[in-house]
Amino acid sequence: MANKTDGGNGFVTEITPQSADFSRWYLDIVRRAELADYSPVKGCMVIRPYGYAIWELIQRQLDDRFKATGHVNAYFPLFIPENLLMREAEHVEGFAPQVAWVTQGGTEELEEKLAIRPTSETIIGVMYQKWIQSWRDLPVLINQWANVVRWEKVTRPFLRTTEFLWQEGHTAHETEDQAQEETLKILGVYKEFAENVLAMPVVAGEKSESEKFAGAARTYSIEALMGDGRALQAGTSHNLGQNFAKAFGIEFQGRDKTLQHVWTTSWGASTRLIGGLIMTHGDDSGLILPPAVAPWQIVIVPIPRGNWKETVLPTCESIRAQLAGAGLRVRLDEDDSQTPGWKFAEYEMRGVPLRLEIGPKDIEKQSVFAARRDTRAKQSLPMAGLVESVRALLDEIQAELLERARTFRDERTASADTWEEFTRLMEGRPGFVIAPWCGSAACEAAIKAETQATIRNIPFGYEQPPGKPCVRCDQPATVRAWFAKAY
Amino acid sequence: MANKTDGGNGFVTEITPQSADFSRWYLDIVRRAELADYSPVKGCMVIRPYGYAIWELIQRQLDDRFKATGHVNAYFPLFIPENLLMREAEHVEGFAPQVAWVTQGGTEELEEKLAIRPTSETIIGVMYQKWIQSWRDLPVLINQWANVVRWEKVTRPFLRTTEFLWQEGHTAHETEDQAQEETLKILGVYKEFAENVLAMPVVAGEKSESEKFAGAARTYSIEALMGDGRALQAGTSHNLGQNFAKAFGIEFQGRDKTLQHVWTTSWGASTRLIGGLIMTHGDDSGLILPPAVAPWQIVIVPIPRGNWKETVLPTCESIRAQLAGAGLRVRLDEDDSQTPGWKFAEYEMRGVPLRLEIGPKDIEKQSVFAARRDTRAKQSLPMAGLVESVRALLDEIQAELLERARTFRDERTASADTWEEFTRLMEGRPGFVIAPWCGSAACEAAIKAETQATIRNIPFGYEQPPGKPCVRCDQPATVRAWFAKAY
Repeated sequence: MANKTDGGNGFVTEITPQSADFSRWYLDIVRRAELADYSPVKGCMVIRPYGYAIWELIQRQLDDRFKATGHVNAYFPLFIPENLLMREAEHVEGFAPQVAWVTQGGTEELEEKLAIRPTSETIIGVMYQKWIQSWRDLPVLINQWANVVRWEKVTRPFLRTTEFLWQEGHTAHETEDQAQEETLKILGVYKEFAENVLAMPVVAGEKSESEKFAGAARTYSIEALMGDGRALQAGTSHNLGQNFAKAFGIEFQGRDKTLQHVWTTSWGASTRLIGGLIMTHGDDSGLILPPAVAPWQIVIVPIPRGNWKETVLPTCESIRAQLAGAGLRVRLDEDDSQTPGWKFAEYEMRGVPLRLEIGPKDIEKQSVFAARRDTRAKQSLPMAGLVESVRALLDEIQAELLERARTFRDERTASADTWEEFTRLMEGRPGFVIAPWCGSAACEAAIKAETQATIRNIPFGYEQPPGKPCVRCDQPATVRAWFAKAY
Repeated sequence: MANKTDGGNGFVTEITPQSADFSRWYLDIVRRAELADYSPVKGCMVIRPYGYAIWELIQRQLDDRFKATGHVNAYFPLFIPENLLMREAEHVEGFAPQVAWVTQGGTEELEEKLAIRPTSETIIGVMYQKWIQSWRDLPVLINQWANVVRWEKVTRPFLRTTEFLWQEGHTAHETEDQAQEETLKILGVYKEFAENVLAMPVVAGEKSESEKFAGAARTYSIEALMGDGRALQAGTSHNLGQNFAKAFGIEFQGRDKTLQHVWTTSWGASTRLIGGLIMTHGDDSGLILPPAVAPWQIVIVPIPRGNWKETVLPTCESIRAQLAGAGLRVRLDEDDSQTPGWKFAEYEMRGVPLRLEIGPKDIEKQSVFAARRDTRAKQSLPMAGLVESVRALLDEIQAELLERARTFRDERTASADTWEEFTRLMEGRPGFVIAPWCGSAACEAAIKAETQATIRNIPFGYEQPPGKPCVRCDQPATVRAWFAKAY
């Protein structure tokens, strides 16, 4: 860790305040907390060990949820021959402009160029066509953890990069209802995961026709609100109907012996979630990590007084071992080339949820001094029963981060019934504005052109009872959509 | 699982006997056990869920070992700009002919083409140049789990594919000694992992000059012996000296304030290990998996007599829950559209280490009937203490598989001092032949041309005391090298 603080007075330099420039603040955090770095390849980032450790915690906990709901992992090729990508009409239209193409392998020019997968519906479609013959082969519930590439013009670490890491689930079902059930089940998994693990409250709902996945019948998303009032799409789940089944001839013999096309779904979440974490919880001192995804949940900082290596350090080590033995992720920083003040600032900047300070006086009193990153509240904790009290504190931090973010989001969610109200609310960085909408793509486009706001999604139960006009035109509104300026 | 057995008489069809055609046998296992499938992309395979579950178990256990030895994970870009790949002279010579090139991104032709990483020393070198300034920043101990691409002419599932999954460690050190220590430490991790987890005995040693990694100072490998007497390189660890440090300008200020180049290493193991597993343990009935990497360590097959769903099934379920609760990976197959005989053959083919049969008589006797996949030994186990006895059996299977493979390997390892002896031993598929070698690349090439045998490696302690000539020429031998025909 390079020394980038101003010598131990507790303030980390080189982080632009959020209020001065939120974008700059974000990039400063990414760099200073060593989450990611720019690479020599345009639009591609390097995920550094601290950032990757967060991703591993996300992966593990999402993967556990997929497996608990009956899914298995597999791996499909990185390359997609051009003719496959072209087979589903809407899909190709959506993705072709963003594809990186391999045209040369070794010393030979390829006869057919190969796309680097931007998503894998097509290559997986070919395999499902081969694997699925009978209703007995269904459902197929497969997920893949992989890298994908989309040629982006404007990129930002974690939020939008040319290459990114994600998981993509691809399932095939016997009936339309089962596919819809799967689509919503995963939407529910994403929402529960975002809220309980990332402490990031989200709105789950259906995307408008213009915002749905290229080739889907219906797309659902979870949408979070970032610290600057912009929305972030944090996961999507698509009901693909029989579109890909028809394009790839995925047929099965049904219980009634007739030949039918399967119903498929796909769903994904990516390293973008790390961007969401940063912008949901962070402050001017740096990152704030929910304990569930903090590579270090606790840092122990020994207070060096007198012969501390003989008096203080052994106690620190024994406490570290206790906490680690209880399955907590804990770091003891015994580096004596840095002051405690420097360390306080450094681990605050890195978002470590809980700091334990231990000095000679604490040992005398058989207690440790605990400082929370989120509220900065400090308290003394008896060494007796420390594992339990630390665990309770971490649980409290996890729960309160979610509550704090939910309050923030709710305070920035308003309703507008008239265009005047809507445009006034949409000035600056307002958060969500809920407004009646007629369902027309033209209206949606006009709203975007005039206010930059897009429909994030339409949550369940947000049908508009008859009698209200659309916020933009005078046609009757059918739903109340959630609008926001978005990443 | 499709029905591909001949109706329950216990013999799985469609697997070519090893003795008839080992290559065919291998491909049959891969297909029938649903480990992998061919994809529409030349040379690229799909890793199916059963195969991927083995890979996840390999990953988890290797990753734990890397972390226990102080390494952290990160992620570097898939793309390497052409000029970077070209910077280390030997490296480019070794890899350029095998590279897939991206020349088009979206609708634009790229000004500089991008290699799909065949390995990541170069792109990582650029980042290390940026991250490392002082001896305080060292060592850097980073690993990456990733896909890589090498344009291969002849491919075979798991053993050699155009795209494959692997881990690649990349470390940087202050001194030459530390880099060498790291190189050998990882070689040791690979050996211990191969033997204790994969039950695959390996010879660890140094590669000859002609077989070393393009750009390395020294390459070490672990080499296993497959069931057909051919060797398989199962992992490599490279001491890169200062070659990449000089090519990429990775310099640091030393303790003595002078500017020095770092010393780097790299090391990798891949999905090829799954091919090694298959060919080390499998037999004519199919796969045999060591319990440590078996997706299902135990399968419970209920014997359907009378109203078995009321009498037998609840006991099976309770035993399943007991074993699963103890952390064992267990599957209860209650599908009543298949006979027990069909199931026996199917799970044998899939290599499940232990089968438990439970019928009305077993319940009467409060015991279960256990059948080992490896030895086909059968025994009755009391239900009381079943978790313990099953665990003990699995440990025994794990240990005996290693012993069996070691015996097989030792019986196929011979020494030859003369060329006549060497060529005679090298007829057919002999296994390893240890022979004195002068160290000359010309001799090595001649041996390969005349016998197809290559030097697998030179283990530690295999220096040749003076006085013996090379097995091929009359120059004095310096080492005793392990030769074999290899995958």
